Amino acid sequence: MTLPGHRPDTSSLRREVLISPGMCGAGSLVFGQIGDWTWEAVAAACGTNVHAARTADGRPAYLSFYYYRVRAGRTLHPHGLSFGDELRVDSRVFQFGGRSAVTLHRLAPAGLDLPDGPLDAAEVYERPHPDCLYAENFNRWIARSRSGSNESLAQTAPPDFAHRHLPRLPNAHSPRSPVGRAREAGSFHSAPPPGFAPAGPGFSCGYELDTVRDLNGAGLVYFAAYFAIFDTALLRSWRALGRADEQFLRRRVVDERIGFFGNADPGAAFRIEVRRWRGGPERPGAEIADMALRDAASGRLLAVASIETAPDGGEDRNGDGQER
Amino acid sequence: MTLPGHRPDTSSLRREVLISPGMCGAGSLVFGQIGDWTWEAVAAACGTNVHAARTADGRPAYLSFYYYRVRAGRTLHPHGLSFGDELRVDSRVFQFGGRSAVTLHRLAPAGLDLPDGPLDAAEVYERPHPDCLYAENFNRWIARSRSGSNESLAQTAPPDFAHRHLPRLPNAHSPRSPVGRAREAGSFHSAPPPGFAPAGPGFSCGYELDTVRDLNGAGLVYFAAYFAIFDTALLRSWRALGRADEQFLRRRVVDERIGFFGNADPGAAFRIEVRRWRGGPERPGAEIADMALRDAASGRLLAVASIETAPDGGEDRNGDGQER
Repeated sequence: MTLPGHRPDTSSLRREVLISPGMCGAGSLVFGQIGDWTWEAVAAACGTNVHAARTADGRPAYLSFYYYRVRAGRTLHPHGLSFGDELRVDSRVFQFGGRSAVTLHRLAPAGLDLPDGPLDAAEVYERPHPDCLYAENFNRWIARSRSGSNESLAQTAPPDFAHRHLPRLPNAHSPRSPVGRAREAGSFHSAPPPGFAPAGPGFSCGYELDTVRDLNGAGLVYFAAYFAIFDTALLRSWRALGRADEQFLRRRVVDERIGFFGNADPGAAFRIEVRRWRGGPERPGAEIADMALRDAASGRLLAVASIETAPDGGEDRNGDGQER
Repeated sequence: MTLPGHRPDTSSLRREVLISPGMCGAGSLVFGQIGDWTWEAVAAACGTNVHAARTADGRPAYLSFYYYRVRAGRTLHPHGLSFGDELRVDSRVFQFGGRSAVTLHRLAPAGLDLPDGPLDAAEVYERPHPDCLYAENFNRWIARSRSGSNESLAQTAPPDFAHRHLPRLPNAHSPRSPVGRAREAGSFHSAPPPGFAPAGPGFSCGYELDTVRDLNGAGLVYFAAYFAIFDTALLRSWRALGRADEQFLRRRVVDERIGFFGNADPGAAFRIEVRRWRGGPERPGAEIADMALRDAASGRLLAVASIETAPDGGEDRNGDGQER
């Protein structure tokens, strides 16, 4: 349940949220929910009917997810939310050219002492509050180039997309270069992540696009489904290491990034490669799964993910609900 | 996006809804969303913190889904919603004993001429508006009998669950007997559905509980996951008949019922039996998939579903979005 938003300035939206079953759990509902908040924040900040947008020549335009990052705090992590949790969510939209936007979100436990003004980019990138969860969404306007196909999507914005009044994201924090590099390298870690060393042999598995679960209301592969698809590969790689599903369910994701570089049609088959990085003495128990999702037939790169997990928090997900 | 609810009376909630990506699609998000509205309606009508309820002795209590029915109209059907659709949703909670509630929802296209008062049970059951989608949720309060196990869940209500002031559901429309019979028979169609005849051979498939997608924020199998699990069996049975996935994506569900009779723990394996019924001369093209979900090891009945589909609507789900 989301109470009506307050607007600290024209680029921002603030709301009180009561977490419901449809917003949390082991799966990707939380990522879908944050994505919905991004659309609402852009609709409010940019005066565009984001949910039913059209290009200048009348085709449906989608505010697609190109890059999505979530960083957890010590209190809130994406799979640790449960219904009944009360949050304050601050969202702010930043200028990022005429066909894109970057939206930042801060999810805080209700009642946390926080500044009253609009969300500051420097807080998100340089001095995050240790109790908060932060999300960064880089969205691009796209439209189908060919009706009925999800394989050729072109960048184009609806004519009423107002963006010049939005605050600018400091260059140092622009996701454009790191995401471009990840797309080129097929990995967010073309250089080893600081404090981590390569671990074990690689892992690879197939995945058939799930006709029941993976498509959104416009017939495109749903951005939140990529989270579930990468988690499926992560779970299989953990099972190959002899780890139990219970350990997977207790995982604490501290930093997850996905770059979305291609869509697919029903019937598509994917191949997912997983490399692991293990934290050194300063990050004992930390691990990064470094994954690339490709169309199995053509080898086309569709998405790249990096999921950093912290050592097992020992939470009692199946128990009395006290420790979530 | 859901705008703040208006309350036509103490048992009711009315809201204007803008469908977002997280509320629609081929999968089960729409059923999860309606379920969230049920929890909100019960919270508002019964003065109970439904999202974080406790039994008298302090254990978490869940307002679990025991029976869920959705009937489509000619305009709205569950997999036909797309983002940007504007709806008016009327919800009303009915008295159903001290440990249960029945919640009815009417989803209407915005602007439809509808009565102003609270939702009338007679409208839902006897004279549904042909343009509306109706949902019926029969929920029971449960708690785990044994910490850490999802297999023994007992009925119990939080002490502050106020229900005596709620309107009564006319006996003729009580779901208790039909759901009881479905649980006993393992089918909503122990007698052939009027106007339908048995079709083809039966179909059966296995399903492994999906650790990534099927668990909710309390570690229980999410009620909306049962919709996706039954749809997975339906899709496989359609493939066995030589039907294409595109036909599945265009399916128009006109009546879907699920009875939830058991939960399961991670690692569980299920077996799903599918029988088909084909509409006679008065229902050309109509089909009912009559399904039972059992724990593969013990044979314990976990859920029963009936999904009636109408002939292919010819909608262009993958196309320009105009016809949804």
